[in-house]
Amino acid sequence: MSRPDPDLVSLRRELHRRPEPAWREFYTTATLVAELESRVDLDELHVGPDAIAGDHRMAVPDEAELATWYERAREAGADETILERLEGGYTGAVAVLEMGDGPTVGLRVDIDGLPREEADDPDHVPAAEGFRSENEGAMHACGHDAHATIGVGVLERVAESDFSGTLKVFFQPAEEVIGGGKSMAKSDHIDDVDYLLAVHVGLDHPTGEVIAGIDGFLAVSHLEAEFTGEPAHAGGHPEQGRNAVQAMATAVQNLYGIPRHDEGATRINAGVVEGGSAANIIPEHARIVAEVRGETTELMEYMRTHATQVIRSAAEMHDCAVEFETGAEAPSATSDQELVSIVADVASETADVERVLERDELGGSEDATFLMREVQQNGGVAAYVGIGTNHPGGHHTSTFDVDEPTIDHGVDVLAGAIEQIGLENP
Amino acid sequence: MSRPDPDLVSLRRELHRRPEPAWREFYTTATLVAELESRVDLDELHVGPDAIAGDHRMAVPDEAELATWYERAREAGADETILERLEGGYTGAVAVLEMGDGPTVGLRVDIDGLPREEADDPDHVPAAEGFRSENEGAMHACGHDAHATIGVGVLERVAESDFSGTLKVFFQPAEEVIGGGKSMAKSDHIDDVDYLLAVHVGLDHPTGEVIAGIDGFLAVSHLEAEFTGEPAHAGGHPEQGRNAVQAMATAVQNLYGIPRHDEGATRINAGVVEGGSAANIIPEHARIVAEVRGETTELMEYMRTHATQVIRSAAEMHDCAVEFETGAEAPSATSDQELVSIVADVASETADVERVLERDELGGSEDATFLMREVQQNGGVAAYVGIGTNHPGGHHTSTFDVDEPTIDHGVDVLAGAIEQIGLENP
Amino acid sequence: MSRPDPDLVSLRRELHRRPEPAWREFYTTATLVAELESRVDLDELHVGPDAIAGDHRMAVPDEAELATWYERAREAGADETILERLEGGYTGAVAVLEMGDGPTVGLRVDIDGLPREEADDPDHVPAAEGFRSENEGAMHACGHDAHATIGVGVLERVAESDFSGTLKVFFQPAEEVIGGGKSMAKSDHIDDVDYLLAVHVGLDHPTGEVIAGIDGFLAVSHLEAEFTGEPAHAGGHPEQGRNAVQAMATAVQNLYGIPRHDEGATRINAGVVEGGSAANIIPEHARIVAEVRGETTELMEYMRTHATQVIRSAAEMHDCAVEFETGAEAPSATSDQELVSIVADVASETADVERVLERDELGGSEDATFLMREVQQNGGVAAYVGIGTNHPGGHHTSTFDVDEPTIDHGVDVLAGAIEQIGLENP
Amino acid sequence: MSRPDPDLVSLRRELHRRPEPAWREFYTTATLVAELESRVDLDELHVGPDAIAGDHRMAVPDEAELATWYERAREAGADETILERLEGGYTGAVAVLEMGDGPTVGLRVDIDGLPREEADDPDHVPAAEGFRSENEGAMHACGHDAHATIGVGVLERVAESDFSGTLKVFFQPAEEVIGGGKSMAKSDHIDDVDYLLAVHVGLDHPTGEVIAGIDGFLAVSHLEAEFTGEPAHAGGHPEQGRNAVQAMATAVQNLYGIPRHDEGATRINAGVVEGGSAANIIPEHARIVAEVRGETTELMEYMRTHATQVIRSAAEMHDCAVEFETGAEAPSATSDQELVSIVADVASETADVERVLERDELGGSEDATFLMREVQQNGGVAAYVGIGTNHPGGHHTSTFDVDEPTIDHGVDVLAGAIEQIGLENP
Repeated sequence: MSRPDPDLVSLRRELHRRPEPAWREFYTTATLVAELESRVDLDELHVGPDAIAGDHRMAVPDEAELATWYERAREAGADETILERLEGGYTGAVAVLEMGDGPTVGLRVDIDGLPREEADDPDHVPAAEGFRSENEGAMHACGHDAHATIGVGVLERVAESDFSGTLKVFFQPAEEVIGGGKSMAKSDHIDDVDYLLAVHVGLDHPTGEVIAGIDGFLAVSHLEAEFTGEPAHAGGHPEQGRNAVQAMATAVQNLYGIPRHDEGATRINAGVVEGGSAANIIPEHARIVAEVRGETTELMEYMRTHATQVIRSAAEMHDCAVEFETGAEAPSATSDQELVSIVADVASETADVERVLERDELGGSEDATFLMREVQQNGGVAAYVGIGTNHPGGHHTSTFDVDEPTIDHGVDVLAGAIEQIGLENP
Repeated sequence: MSRPDPDLVSLRRELHRRPEPAWREFYTTATLVAELESRVDLDELHVGPDAIAGDHRMAVPDEAELATWYERAREAGADETILERLEGGYTGAVAVLEMGDGPTVGLRVDIDGLPREEADDPDHVPAAEGFRSENEGAMHACGHDAHATIGVGVLERVAESDFSGTLKVFFQPAEEVIGGGKSMAKSDHIDDVDYLLAVHVGLDHPTGEVIAGIDGFLAVSHLEAEFTGEPAHAGGHPEQGRNAVQAMATAVQNLYGIPRHDEGATRINAGVVEGGSAANIIPEHARIVAEVRGETTELMEYMRTHATQVIRSAAEMHDCAVEFETGAEAPSATSDQELVSIVADVASETADVERVLERDELGGSEDATFLMREVQQNGGVAAYVGIGTNHPGGHHTSTFDVDEPTIDHGVDVLAGAIEQIGLENP
Repeated sequence: MSRPDPDLVSLRRELHRRPEPAWREFYTTATLVAELESRVDLDELHVGPDAIAGDHRMAVPDEAELATWYERAREAGADETILERLEGGYTGAVAVLEMGDGPTVGLRVDIDGLPREEADDPDHVPAAEGFRSENEGAMHACGHDAHATIGVGVLERVAESDFSGTLKVFFQPAEEVIGGGKSMAKSDHIDDVDYLLAVHVGLDHPTGEVIAGIDGFLAVSHLEAEFTGEPAHAGGHPEQGRNAVQAMATAVQNLYGIPRHDEGATRINAGVVEGGSAANIIPEHARIVAEVRGETTELMEYMRTHATQVIRSAAEMHDCAVEFETGAEAPSATSDQELVSIVADVASETADVERVLERDELGGSEDATFLMREVQQNGGVAAYVGIGTNHPGGHHTSTFDVDEPTIDHGVDVLAGAIEQIGLENP
Repeated sequence: MSRPDPDLVSLRRELHRRPEPAWREFYTTATLVAELESRVDLDELHVGPDAIAGDHRMAVPDEAELATWYERAREAGADETILERLEGGYTGAVAVLEMGDGPTVGLRVDIDGLPREEADDPDHVPAAEGFRSENEGAMHACGHDAHATIGVGVLERVAESDFSGTLKVFFQPAEEVIGGGKSMAKSDHIDDVDYLLAVHVGLDHPTGEVIAGIDGFLAVSHLEAEFTGEPAHAGGHPEQGRNAVQAMATAVQNLYGIPRHDEGATRINAGVVEGGSAANIIPEHARIVAEVRGETTELMEYMRTHATQVIRSAAEMHDCAVEFETGAEAPSATSDQELVSIVADVASETADVERVLERDELGGSEDATFLMREVQQNGGVAAYVGIGTNHPGGHHTSTFDVDEPTIDHGVDVLAGAIEQIGLENP
């Protein structure tokens, strides 16, 4: 069995130790930029507002939140000159390598962490080996630390290869809130991409497996509702309150009860809720942050329509006002066979890859679909590639971890596919 | 019409500007202590751990929260030597004035604020006149700023009077979470009190009204429940989650549906709820901070038993674990006629008091009942006195305010009653 | 201890064996009429449409239901000539005894049973002694069999007494659905009543107790809601349904959660619900039969307003139509002291009455309040009298029963009070 | 365009006029038996207990219900000697036609109606043309009247053909409650069947379409729960009740909220609910008749496990007992390609069939799967054939109807396929 590239492993662990949620990837972006500058002779490196279309960012947190994480990144030793370019939550980067005539190939990797506590028991490798999250309450629980690392590794590998053409690696922020994909798809950098690869590790596939083309992305939309009622003393005048928490609880109960749909998979989750201020005050305020998904955009919209109605009626029932905030959303997309075949062929000949599946269904959502659709609409092709990894806990859980040889597999397969694209499109 | 005492008004406004919730009354206690030391020639002044039985504090927040408010008090200019005595959330004070032979009279005033935002529109007097809360998210929305001020005023007035006996004023922390009454009742200071007065402004009575004896305190108990489920990717594997927010919403719906009771008033409020971490994660965690009340302790316990069962079954339904935290609680109590008559007589002869009611029902809860019951069990008598005030918004709402002449009415009636107690018990 | 009057006991048992719910009291009315005609020399006996104001009947069942019970009464041997006068659900009777100059005294007794199964175990006296309900699914579970019997007994007793004045006994149908009181109050027979007595046995008071004046009637209103959605095949097209049962369940959950009110007792009950047609059809139809109550009419209306809103919003949430049917309702009322004192005095001197309470609170509802208010508005006085009885099960439960000596106590106290009224108002 | 066979149309209308729900198909069976005896020279005709394995019947209604429908069938003029053989709810028949050496082919048609009201407006053909249901509250809303008619037509047609082999037509009762399939699969008649065809009309396919092999049967299970609480007077002692309707409503809310499953389609429906006895009694009793489905048996069991837990916890929450009744269930199944190809070929050459689909997914459930699996386990093959029909309302709705030319299409395709099977298996 191969040993993972020690450089890439330490980069991945460095990123793992500093997980930053959506639009707060200050330390992450600065680290990646510094790493790229020192390791690869790039032709262009677009950072922050130069990498993304800022107006198309979705689900950006408020200034206080951004400032807290910015400060944290500085205290952790991020390069201040890079940091300054990211101010205001303009994170991410696009690295460009021009290697002569040939096709323009894009690789999209996402870089953000999740707002969840990481496990701290000895069975959890990051805890045992000392690279557990140092940002309490945040965690790389979906492998984006590995994705970003693979992006760096691919650049390095391709730079040393005979590839002829242009390689662009998109280090995309804010995937977990489906907030960054659109802003990257709407930047100019995507316009000339002929072939787009995106990558994800794990997805319940073990180390040594590669899925050449993943489909079955659920369309997704975020939905945030704020209920406003009327406070009252809970002992003295309960009848004078208009109870926003009762409205919220009624909504939650009925959101999960929206009928299943015969035409395909649907999803609903009231992922974050809160309400009220004190035990003895009838709650005047409550909030639901939900998401709906559908196997097609129509199914997602079926869910959204019903969810909106449920929330509106629940508010009305308890005489509360409700305001909706239009959340981030992403469409569905499919992998093109031309590119899937190239990836499958390359993977079959890659050392340590024991099994290649041509296709699989994701059953989740991804805002890589914005970039895939953009490329496809421009006449290019796209594929979403899975690199198996033995992950002890499920995605988004506190014991998720990446089996590190996976990083090399990703670099091998993707760099190999990029070279092959160059060969086939002289 | 009388003009309020300008000294007391500025003290009340100073306290109003710095509302501090339960066990965080650092600035408040320090200010009161400094004020008392400069204005009244006290015989004893017990502060913080010397004023209360620390072990009997209920609903104390965690250290980080205490540290934040401690720091805030210091930054606001609180006397550091006093502050140090309060460290760890030992707030409150007991002031003693010995004026010769005679009965020992206690006066209990509470001093804490509420965790709610104060109104900021020009109709709200504190906003218009520049003493709106400077502690964002906290507010004196129940008049405890006036109560504490009345306590100082009464000490001052009695010190100048012919009263013969001992006066003890209990500046009690943490009433809003019913967390401080017991710790004051269990301190030694209450043991020799023969007559105990407690006071509250407002309660839907206008300026100029006095209620000599308030009854109808609802027994109350806080109940906190933490639900723990299992997270999962909401798109990819919803079936692998165990949804703590669904459990919580089911509980909330059914808590409010606990049957009314034929034997008297009951109350339930799920005052604070929260759960989940991100829109795309099945929520593994949720929390309810609730309170139950009853016209008698039995009725409160009926509610508590049912609430516990509802929460436990809701957790089980969604395959979640649940942990309960024993919350603060307070019994019911009644005002003794002997003392009610004295207060009513004095009030009838007090300038600017236009209407005296002998009795009224509170319909809320109060941990003054711990002190009242303690005195009554020791053979003393107690009364809970209401001083009317025109309050624009209801108690606990963002537009609550005190009509300031009320402060003088309180001082007049209570100091008058104390002198009268001395006269009647030579 | 006295032995109960055997004639009255067998009449009560005869009525008990044939319980008939609201407006279906065909056998009951016919039996009472036949009994009165054979036992008392009445001056007038108004039956069915002559006894009540038919237009003011509330909650009358449909014709098929009336026809079924009418037929059942005929099969059970009810006098056909009397039966014919009751056709269409015009049940009840008013018996008049004129005994010279003097006041007109009314006595109101109710005669209907409840739609519930009676217990059939050997501990239940009616089962053991062979007079358990022969109308399956119906039961005298609230003692109206005893009330009607007391009405007959009082007429008999007063007819033999020296009473001077007029006695009218109102045998009122449909109390359990609060549907009959108004129709009797709106008939002419009540207009000249100076003193009105109403009677109820039990109410958690043991045999030997008498309550001279019961108050605390809750105002009550019935509320019936029909939800109409859209059916669909539950397996094939769940998304095409509009689920009336989901709407109904949401409504039920939130009806019980209407906030308690500080100003007094409130009640809510979704007493009958149903919906759907088959396991594999998304339910297109559902129904709630509910009632709301309040210590005052205002409190009842507070509940009704909220209940209506809850139901309307629940329907809207699930895209269902909803229709409300205005249900029966009754106001609150109080017993007049003049009459309470007479009853209390008489009761104190009645054999076997061991304890007399002047007042108690009912905490339930009663449409006797329509008659009481009518008399009071005409300048008369009214009292609602309780006659204790040891009842093994609670009111409205399957093991409720009347301890039969109670019947004599009722006759003694009420006939005695009527004679006393005559004496005091010559 | 062809005109439908008038004989078959009148048979279908006769059946439509007398829809009978599961196990109550007395008139239907008797009519089919009489019709077959007069039209086809059968070799065997097994009726009632001789057609099915009586012990394997599921979801049989109680005796009173059976007796009511039996009587209704007699009054409608069903042949009494046939009726007697069906007593006790043993309905259905198996007709056998022996036509020399060759394979044994089975055709399964279902014959029961649904417990729902039929539309009565002029747009609804059965109403307009006078064959609307005369059994109020029951309706052929799923086309089984057409299925049974097709069964008769196929027997007639094959009898006149050159088919060599044996044909058995299974007229199966109680499909709608998935209660009859197993009892037919467990009878001896299925044992020698080599080829099994089942048929369904409609399924959202228009007249002129044929689907040669339907898959995607959802496994299904019925689940019935009875909640038992404690009654109490809703006004007087609400706290003494244990409210079965609250438990039921809580269960319904949470049943629909069971998480969707990533591995495939799931379904839940609380199709019939009821509870309580009167508006003023806290409901002591409630009932849910539900069904769960899954794309696989495992998914169905996932739903059933969760549903059971939800119901159990809801009962516990409201201190009610709950009893479950094991309902009927059916597995999933797939159509064999060998038979699908034969049907597709025959259909392509059938007049008036404009479009043939080889495969489609049902997305519903069917207890034909019991017979299909039995045949497949014995080494035979099976296919479930769809015959398109323009149906104005959805399946199971009040405006469902069959476009009658469909009947001939079904006879043509199925009889043709049977002859072809004979030809291919000499």
